[in-house]
Amino acid sequence: MTKKPEVLSKKLGLVFNDPQLFIHALTHRSASSNNNERLEFLGDAILGFVIAEQLYNLFPDAPEGVLSRMRASLVNQRSLAEIAREHKLGDYLLLGSGELKSGGFDRDSILSDAVEAIIAALYKDQGMVICQKWIPELFNEKLNNLSLNKGQKDPKTRLQEFMQAKKLDLPQYVLLTASGLAHEQTFKVQCTISLLSTPSIGAGVTRKGAEQGAAEIILEKLAKENIL
Amino acid sequence: MTKKPEVLSKKLGLVFNDPQLFIHALTHRSASSNNNERLEFLGDAILGFVIAEQLYNLFPDAPEGVLSRMRASLVNQRSLAEIAREHKLGDYLLLGSGELKSGGFDRDSILSDAVEAIIAALYKDQGMVICQKWIPELFNEKLNNLSLNKGQKDPKTRLQEFMQAKKLDLPQYVLLTASGLAHEQTFKVQCTISLLSTPSIGAGVTRKGAEQGAAEIILEKLAKENIL
Repeated sequence: MTKKPEVLSKKLGLVFNDPQLFIHALTHRSASSNNNERLEFLGDAILGFVIAEQLYNLFPDAPEGVLSRMRASLVNQRSLAEIAREHKLGDYLLLGSGELKSGGFDRDSILSDAVEAIIAALYKDQGMVICQKWIPELFNEKLNNLSLNKGQKDPKTRLQEFMQAKKLDLPQYVLLTASGLAHEQTFKVQCTISLLSTPSIGAGVTRKGAEQGAAEIILEKLAKENIL
Repeated sequence: MTKKPEVLSKKLGLVFNDPQLFIHALTHRSASSNNNERLEFLGDAILGFVIAEQLYNLFPDAPEGVLSRMRASLVNQRSLAEIAREHKLGDYLLLGSGELKSGGFDRDSILSDAVEAIIAALYKDQGMVICQKWIPELFNEKLNNLSLNKGQKDPKTRLQEFMQAKKLDLPQYVLLTASGLAHEQTFKVQCTISLLSTPSIGAGVTRKGAEQGAAEIILEKLAKENIL
């Protein structure tokens, strides 16, 4: 049963000048040819930019590879569907009868597309600055979790301290390759810990940088598995 | 030999409040640890958004799939490297000696990364509105080529008229599948023309929509091969 869109917009902290835009964003293609697919295309791009900028500013020392991985962990179908479910977005979607019967209101793809479409609707209604304010609020918890995982200490130190606290063997770092000319080498380092069956590989222009990268990936894996 | 960055910024029509930002964007990691990799991460996201918005506005009737394909054809390493070469960007890059010797100034990846880094530098220097003005100018020719390919007429009509003008057999459309419930079917249609050895497949919620999608893809292929 579809609930009133203004209840949802209020829950999301949004007031639309043009409420039709918001309804448009909630309209799945099973319900109408005038649906949210184009808005989703635009919203995906806005979301990608806003999160990229947030991470760029939040982690001034993180190399590009770490920023990319963090963005991928924040912006993906599953994570957007989680955010949608937190706000019970499925209750407000406009779906065709077949999608309603088959549970479309709880499908990851439909939920995440709707979140992106709402972002585009907000952009079209009120511009980029409000998106740069609202999207980080929407991702607040997920961004905070990232922040907690990346304190002042570098990844190697954090991983070592974590293993020590658990009274486990320290991480093992093995140099896999060092390629390139003398002053422009690329290093690949493998990091293995007893808690994970698969080692992680980091790369960098210094050996230490590669080790940090590998430790960073291990920390992300541990966080994903809720071990950290 | 590296030329003066202010010559390049002038050629690009840019005046930086903070010229160091622009130099930063031209600095490859082979030249310095303070290089353009983080800016490239941010610039990639800004570029993706600005082009998405352009396409969204330029093609109000194009479905999401067509917009995505158009964006992918505009924003990719090869196309960014082409733009970089048009402005002889390689002459202005700051590269390590090894990269200089091995021709890094003409490598697609290094050139396209620098274009994205310049976009982020511009954003940090002057904000989004100037990026929304400058990036479309940078992509002007490529956007115009797209625009020429998509006039008022629908893809099937344009493809048919093109084949007729060439005195070739008309396109063949074959329905491959129709799946889903009665009012929410998805259709897949294959379109074949004598000029291309591989057929194209379009999908849509109507058979006609799927045919239009398939014709659209054929038109894009023809444009890419410079046949159109």
